[in-house]
Amino acid sequence: MRREVTLRDVAELAGVSSRTVSNVVNGYANVTERTRERVQRAVEELGYRPNVLARNLAQGRSGQIAVVVPYLDTPYFSELLQSVIRAARISGYNVLIDQTDGDAEHERGFIAHGSRRLLFDGVIFSPLGLDQRALADRDPALPLVILGERASDGSFDHVGIDDVAASRQATEHLLDLGRHRVAAIGDQPYATGEAAQLRTQGFREAHTARGLSIREDLIIGTARFNRPDGARAMADLLDRGDPPDAVFCYSDLVALGAIHTILARGLRVPEDIAVIGYDDIEDGRYSNPTVSTISPDKEWIATTAVERLLLRIGSSTPPPGLELRAPHKLIVRESTTGRASRP
Amino acid sequence: MRREVTLRDVAELAGVSSRTVSNVVNGYANVTERTRERVQRAVEELGYRPNVLARNLAQGRSGQIAVVVPYLDTPYFSELLQSVIRAARISGYNVLIDQTDGDAEHERGFIAHGSRRLLFDGVIFSPLGLDQRALADRDPALPLVILGERASDGSFDHVGIDDVAASRQATEHLLDLGRHRVAAIGDQPYATGEAAQLRTQGFREAHTARGLSIREDLIIGTARFNRPDGARAMADLLDRGDPPDAVFCYSDLVALGAIHTILARGLRVPEDIAVIGYDDIEDGRYSNPTVSTISPDKEWIATTAVERLLLRIGSSTPPPGLELRAPHKLIVRESTTGRASRP
Repeated sequence: MRREVTLRDVAELAGVSSRTVSNVVNGYANVTERTRERVQRAVEELGYRPNVLARNLAQGRSGQIAVVVPYLDTPYFSELLQSVIRAARISGYNVLIDQTDGDAEHERGFIAHGSRRLLFDGVIFSPLGLDQRALADRDPALPLVILGERASDGSFDHVGIDDVAASRQATEHLLDLGRHRVAAIGDQPYATGEAAQLRTQGFREAHTARGLSIREDLIIGTARFNRPDGARAMADLLDRGDPPDAVFCYSDLVALGAIHTILARGLRVPEDIAVIGYDDIEDGRYSNPTVSTISPDKEWIATTAVERLLLRIGSSTPPPGLELRAPHKLIVRESTTGRASRP
Repeated sequence: MRREVTLRDVAELAGVSSRTVSNVVNGYANVTERTRERVQRAVEELGYRPNVLARNLAQGRSGQIAVVVPYLDTPYFSELLQSVIRAARISGYNVLIDQTDGDAEHERGFIAHGSRRLLFDGVIFSPLGLDQRALADRDPALPLVILGERASDGSFDHVGIDDVAASRQATEHLLDLGRHRVAAIGDQPYATGEAAQLRTQGFREAHTARGLSIREDLIIGTARFNRPDGARAMADLLDRGDPPDAVFCYSDLVALGAIHTILARGLRVPEDIAVIGYDDIEDGRYSNPTVSTISPDKEWIATTAVERLLLRIGSSTPPPGLELRAPHKLIVRESTTGRASRP
């Protein structure tokens, strides 16, 4: 590779100190017009481009924010990212994205002391591997906004919808249709699956509020919220006999996987089994049948996350961490009420 | 925000120069054991962490590669990224991802002289806004591998499948089914849509090879390769009367949008209209009907792109740019041959 022209090369040619070149390049006022011109000529002659990293070092800023998500092939995240990128660019920030696969060590790298501080000025983070305690042990100077899992401990902002209320609403929609054996697919009863646990809680509350008992064997766990896991969980339910007549799926992908299995077995959606998802991804608007769902206001989540992060980046003393609840709504489509619901 | 401990703080406490601290931190040999210990004590006492950017500046390396794609909400890219990230991490590289929205200026920023050189050591780039000529006007020292559009000009590697052959194969599959009025959705006859143009060429060749004439009015352009554009283009075709009996769509998303429209009009897939897509995304494996498609070997594309990029990063003189053709295959599913094709 060709050697890059350095600040020192410019200084040598212009016959000034490196600090003076730096002052000129960064537009500081403490340089005479004559010196400025001499440096400028040397910059042009050598084709010197001020190095972004060097400038970041000098200014303590990168002009970049990082968005860290577990999986980029999850449409919920890729749709949310569209809005995050748009909102950040309007404020002059570039967005760098990283995928963690939910790996706790990789996640820790993003919030650890100093490790990458000057690559980005703050992080919008959707943790999966790190639990609440691990989150607390981080660089306190790092501006941080959390999406999805993990409640705020007061030192960062958390943006998400009310998972319990939304899940209760989804389950109530199935019960309102007169369904009696409602299953839930997506539970993650272990420590890190907090969103899943809140959704199971909402599922339970919908039953309890109507005095209905919960069939524990109809609450099915999955490792991820994706199509293959949804398809497998549904196959398990159907293999048992006494199948459910409705299913609340913890994501639209899980719902699409479940619907695939139901149709492959020669059963009908929603006549035999009604299915509702969660996330309102584009996929569920075009599928056959289209998928009823809980629609979080992704635009609200994205713009709020960016606004709060930029506020933190610009504050010399960190603002208090907030729990921010995004609006959500129930969207009824064919997978619960059939063709009649087609707009 | 708390002020970060700097190299200078360490130097002051240890009573040595900043350069000496830098030598110790970077493990250079030209420091006495006594000095090394003194610096080490100061590092520990102050909790100093060597700054990634500072170290990159010193070493001229970031340990990061950038992957730059037009749209992250395109499953083809998000699936490909899974394999790129995996392959890069095995080689000790972190991957930073950026979305350009196909904006030429934004794309240029990634390959321009010096601009971000030390943030990443090389770029895997799927351009959309920049044409071949604009690509040539870039930092020649930047290791670059191109995906999708744009052929290699000999100075970078290009990894992709043979779009003409694959599209011809997809079209021949429809003709083999005895379909006579085959439409194509996804043409982009303007300058930058090279992949689209190659697909149209393959579509034409399949007809010409069999002595069939091409109905030019059945070749439909779209702005993007997504569901809404596929749905709209199909609606246009159906509104005209004399609808096609088969459609070659330039992506699976376009195919899913087209199928949505066909079913909403009360027509059947494939009985009334057979549909084939392109990309083999997970979506088309779970949809109803499942989608016949051209399946590029994404794992091959990803690992080859990473291998070539790391080879370029590690070479003092750039290796010649190669045209690398990934394997692909035709996958027949329900959207062309009906339930019989269900595995």
